[in-house]
Amino acid sequence: MDFSSKLLENAVNEISQLPGIGKRTALRLALHLLKQPEENTHALTEALNKLRNKINFCKKCHNISDSVLCEICQNPNRNQEIVCVVEDVRDVMAIENTSQFRGVYHVLGGKISPMDGIGPHDLTILALVEKVKAGIIKELIFALSSTMEGDTTNFYIFKQIEPYKITTTTIARGIAVGDELEFADEVTLGRSIVNRIPFENSLKV
Amino acid sequence: MDFSSKLLENAVNEISQLPGIGKRTALRLALHLLKQPEENTHALTEALNKLRNKINFCKKCHNISDSVLCEICQNPNRNQEIVCVVEDVRDVMAIENTSQFRGVYHVLGGKISPMDGIGPHDLTILALVEKVKAGIIKELIFALSSTMEGDTTNFYIFKQIEPYKITTTTIARGIAVGDELEFADEVTLGRSIVNRIPFENSLKV
Repeated sequence: MDFSSKLLENAVNEISQLPGIGKRTALRLALHLLKQPEENTHALTEALNKLRNKINFCKKCHNISDSVLCEICQNPNRNQEIVCVVEDVRDVMAIENTSQFRGVYHVLGGKISPMDGIGPHDLTILALVEKVKAGIIKELIFALSSTMEGDTTNFYIFKQIEPYKITTTTIARGIAVGDELEFADEVTLGRSIVNRIPFENSLKV
Repeated sequence: MDFSSKLLENAVNEISQLPGIGKRTALRLALHLLKQPEENTHALTEALNKLRNKINFCKKCHNISDSVLCEICQNPNRNQEIVCVVEDVRDVMAIENTSQFRGVYHVLGGKISPMDGIGPHDLTILALVEKVKAGIIKELIFALSSTMEGDTTNFYIFKQIEPYKITTTTIARGIAVGDELEFADEVTLGRSIVNRIPFENSLKV
């Protein structure tokens, strides 16, 4: 693209660094900001700068938090002995929305992915193992996505904590509520038959 | 959505103000920035602030430019008597890419659109009429998109400059090069037959 202004070109280049945003979309966003009052751009850039500079992670679960401990870890009604291992804050938000979980979380900050150069030491696995070692945790629930990276990460953590003999579980895989059986993939349908549950249990939620 | 951090919530709210970006995408972008080094966020916010604060519009054609006059208006090889009326800087870039136009531009900054609250006085129509009045322009080429708003804007400008008796043209509408006739819409195909051109002309470009 041939820009008439260096300022515009810089802005477009920076915006198009964001994932899923190409040069054309970046140009559209930059021109949108130019049509809006200056305050809108300042509010956006200030929010981003503040987020990046002042962001804090909960000392215990590594979730994004404004205080030393996040609200969930601070809550005396949550069971600190049941820990759900998730990839990032979006998964915490998704599980919290269900109101079905009364334990606490451990946010890994990603999955082991050699292709992207992410090894176990880039994640908070060591801190999790330390917590298990300390004997606070009774049950660990693996809630990573069931991709190759997710399965690798689950298995890596499982091997690390195996000596400490705590209960480890994983969230149920199966046909989503409301889905038609005929459109389900074979692996999911197969697992949902192998891991079938007593009928009464399905009436609980 | 229930955020664990006010900073994150603010950032997501600000990002989702951008057109075509919802809350989920905004959250994904915010988390992406958090995973990147701080410098990336600062480079982005600085580029946006600079763009918004220091942006300059060419005094003559109202295109985005770093100097008082844009490069196109400054170029002595461009014919200042032929002016192409376009909506915004993206259209200038698109036409410049073809290398088929040796005149100059007039950037309106939008189209007349009562639905969005954009009237003639929000655009640079008055400046265009002044230029026509001054007698500098010999031919005006309308190159707005052929939507209702584009046609309205074309007609409004046409009525304003009618007394000054300059040549007014509009870019050719027709079947795109490489397109199949059977898939073309009727209006476009109809226009391309009514406005047919001598065969020799089609060999020029």
